[in-house]
Amino acid sequence: MAEGVTLQSEDYSRWYTDVVQKAEMADYAPVKGCMVIRPYGYALWENIQKALDKRFKDTGHVNAYFPLFIPMSFLQKEAEHVEGFSPELAVVTIGGGEKLEEPLVVRPTSETVIGHMYAQWIKSYRDLPVLINQWANVVRWEMRTRLFLRTMEFLWQEGHTAHETAEEAQEETLRMLGVYQDFAQNEAAIPVIPGRKSASEKFAGAATSYTIEAMMGDRRALQSGTSHNLGQNFAKAFDIQYLDRNNELQYCWTTSWGMSTRMIGAIIMAHGDDKGLIMPPRLAPIQVVIVPISKTDEEREQVLPAAEDITKKLQAAGVRVKFDARTEFTPGWKFNDWEMRGVPLRIEIGPRDVANQSAVLARRDIPGRDGKSFVPWADIETNVAEMLVTIQKAMFDKALAFREEHTHRPGNYEEFKTAVEDGFALAWWCGDAACEDAIKKETKATNRCIPLEQEGGTGKCVYCGKESSEKAVFAKAY
Amino acid sequence: MAEGVTLQSEDYSRWYTDVVQKAEMADYAPVKGCMVIRPYGYALWENIQKALDKRFKDTGHVNAYFPLFIPMSFLQKEAEHVEGFSPELAVVTIGGGEKLEEPLVVRPTSETVIGHMYAQWIKSYRDLPVLINQWANVVRWEMRTRLFLRTMEFLWQEGHTAHETAEEAQEETLRMLGVYQDFAQNEAAIPVIPGRKSASEKFAGAATSYTIEAMMGDRRALQSGTSHNLGQNFAKAFDIQYLDRNNELQYCWTTSWGMSTRMIGAIIMAHGDDKGLIMPPRLAPIQVVIVPISKTDEEREQVLPAAEDITKKLQAAGVRVKFDARTEFTPGWKFNDWEMRGVPLRIEIGPRDVANQSAVLARRDIPGRDGKSFVPWADIETNVAEMLVTIQKAMFDKALAFREEHTHRPGNYEEFKTAVEDGFALAWWCGDAACEDAIKKETKATNRCIPLEQEGGTGKCVYCGKESSEKAVFAKAY
Repeated sequence: MAEGVTLQSEDYSRWYTDVVQKAEMADYAPVKGCMVIRPYGYALWENIQKALDKRFKDTGHVNAYFPLFIPMSFLQKEAEHVEGFSPELAVVTIGGGEKLEEPLVVRPTSETVIGHMYAQWIKSYRDLPVLINQWANVVRWEMRTRLFLRTMEFLWQEGHTAHETAEEAQEETLRMLGVYQDFAQNEAAIPVIPGRKSASEKFAGAATSYTIEAMMGDRRALQSGTSHNLGQNFAKAFDIQYLDRNNELQYCWTTSWGMSTRMIGAIIMAHGDDKGLIMPPRLAPIQVVIVPISKTDEEREQVLPAAEDITKKLQAAGVRVKFDARTEFTPGWKFNDWEMRGVPLRIEIGPRDVANQSAVLARRDIPGRDGKSFVPWADIETNVAEMLVTIQKAMFDKALAFREEHTHRPGNYEEFKTAVEDGFALAWWCGDAACEDAIKKETKATNRCIPLEQEGGTGKCVYCGKESSEKAVFAKAY
Repeated sequence: MAEGVTLQSEDYSRWYTDVVQKAEMADYAPVKGCMVIRPYGYALWENIQKALDKRFKDTGHVNAYFPLFIPMSFLQKEAEHVEGFSPELAVVTIGGGEKLEEPLVVRPTSETVIGHMYAQWIKSYRDLPVLINQWANVVRWEMRTRLFLRTMEFLWQEGHTAHETAEEAQEETLRMLGVYQDFAQNEAAIPVIPGRKSASEKFAGAATSYTIEAMMGDRRALQSGTSHNLGQNFAKAFDIQYLDRNNELQYCWTTSWGMSTRMIGAIIMAHGDDKGLIMPPRLAPIQVVIVPISKTDEEREQVLPAAEDITKKLQAAGVRVKFDARTEFTPGWKFNDWEMRGVPLRIEIGPRDVANQSAVLARRDIPGRDGKSFVPWADIETNVAEMLVTIQKAMFDKALAFREEHTHRPGNYEEFKTAVEDGFALAWWCGDAACEDAIKKETKATNRCIPLEQEGGTGKCVYCGKESSEKAVFAKAY
């Protein structure tokens, strides 16, 4: 275990908070519910941004920036939307020393203000589709907050698109869900279940919401990204109309989709252990740390140049490497410190390694001797690059095996109740909100999603027994 | 001139607004004073961000994120700071449906909240220097706003650093001013004058403020980036203390520095002409546009594959190229449109060019025949790359020549008054705020800066006649 970090088995929630703070990922801001993202946490966010932004651009999207402040009246134009977001608003009532005539809402999400602009920009089918993404901060007033997982202000991206047809909007909605799944699995090494949200769990104002759901280390679910088909709801509320190919006025079909700094929480909880974080190599701010080991000055003079040399080699190969040359700490202390920060690979170099022209690679994801190997200096870049790929895959496989171990297919409600105590219950569900509500009340498990990929067949709803054609994932969730 | 764009000579201010909107750089938001940055404008901002961020990281800085909301009481801890920013604050008084006990300020700048966090993070000299930058939105209540130049909300970066000694803080302040100068000149092709702000023009709370000042196309000055030595002002207000090498408690020395989306306005006004924008190649979202020219279907079949082939070649060479294959517009219309958007280089390909295996390059910065050249396809990438470098340099040289033409060294106050009607007046100034104020009242010209590089000697203050050892730049300014 890491110093000052609670064991997961003792108190998972405290383990999380300890790790986030000890690893200097984030800190509490002076305003309750707000967060400071510290440089190490922000470096992870920058890597997340890069990986997502590339995927957005590769699928034809461009970035733009819409204003932080939204007139209160805008939210009221879409009935469900205002109902969903009203309780969570931060409201500016004073500007430049004077009381405002119309209060301004600090954006909780931007469908309304973007809808207002699209109505002005879109004239004809030639202007469609509009495929815009925004990187921004949003504010939702929250009482019970947790660093990264639920904070009053958070950073995210929100995509907002407008299309000619319902089919195109649906395609876009699922395309972006696919982008999120690809990102989560191949960059963050987190297996996710893409699925449809039930009516009661969907985004306020959406026709249909989709989600990717991940299992955390405490077997609870975390909604990690969402993609909404908004139908014509916002188009009608904001008059987003276009002249179609027959010169007739039509409402657009719109979508929105978002992923946030919550993903950092997902990475921490999907992979972390009692020693601290474990960063997936593809997103890790530091992929490799080099720790020199020497007892005497003479040894030091041998070891340091070798360590520097390897650092340069790895840098040249594009590896994000840190050479920890600090003299005030022992190697053992450094090992613990970097393990806590989750650096995926450590390279140790001592006098014996210099003599052998080799180095020790120690994997963060496999503790002790089993995770160590000796490699020659000659092509250390290749060895390190391969090892990072291996770790990335091993982390995904481990998380997937863990999820499968804790996913159950209960045949009846008794089994269901046991299942959601252990993890995910994949159960037949009739689609009725009443069953969903009753399950939530009785077990605290919520309907996470109806997976896009169904196992087929039909069965009896786990709560009411009605014949059902779809299974849903139920779990306790963040 | 471009359609729908006012001539510069007719009304420069309207020319600016026309160009910003016609080129789809930005639009007005529903909330007065706020702005939407449209994809083409935001793509320019992304290139600005990349170029700046690289320079920040190369000089040892890391990014982080601090909260949008600041307790009102924080601003009051630094007397000058609160006095300077109070009239410009947007204040949140309602959260989650309830009146807040302490109102929250939407950050106008982050010295206070960052100071509060630094006080907790910094314990010893070993923690110093702290070199953090943040990319964020800030809000300053403004009555008279202009797209990019002065908006209620704007995007920027703000660097905040803490140091052991006054000397180090001063070094950092000037280092970052140098980074801004380098960026402005070598990326944005805008010559700037780095200098010190007079006491009355300095940042509220700073010991000394530095600025880079640029001349716009209407010969007014634009402050394009600032770097502040905050002395121990904020360290004392927020208790940012550290144990020094003798184990004694000391206050840190801090700095802050920022550049904003205002730089987009600078690029537009430093380079634009009656045809629209002219983007410096290094920052241009689109560096090269390819326009195919054909009259018959047969010609079209020859020209299109050739244009596509050149597009691919340039893409492979890392050029940001756009192939305009739209059929609903004539080549002439496209020429005007891309000229208005300021794409630095146009490639025309018609049937004769296909026959000759050549293409026409047309420079945006040199109108008509003089800006055209014929190049063979064989190594078109090399030709284009060289041409972009040539354009970048020519744009800087032109802007510098323009500034020099309109910079005067008045020998007396009469000459001074004529000078500031034409551009910059570089004049002896005694350092007294009274002279500065009188000049401002009588001529509307403000003290832009005392250039770091002085021409030497001494002379009589242009206003009061007192012997002075420094010249200052006076100009009408944005």
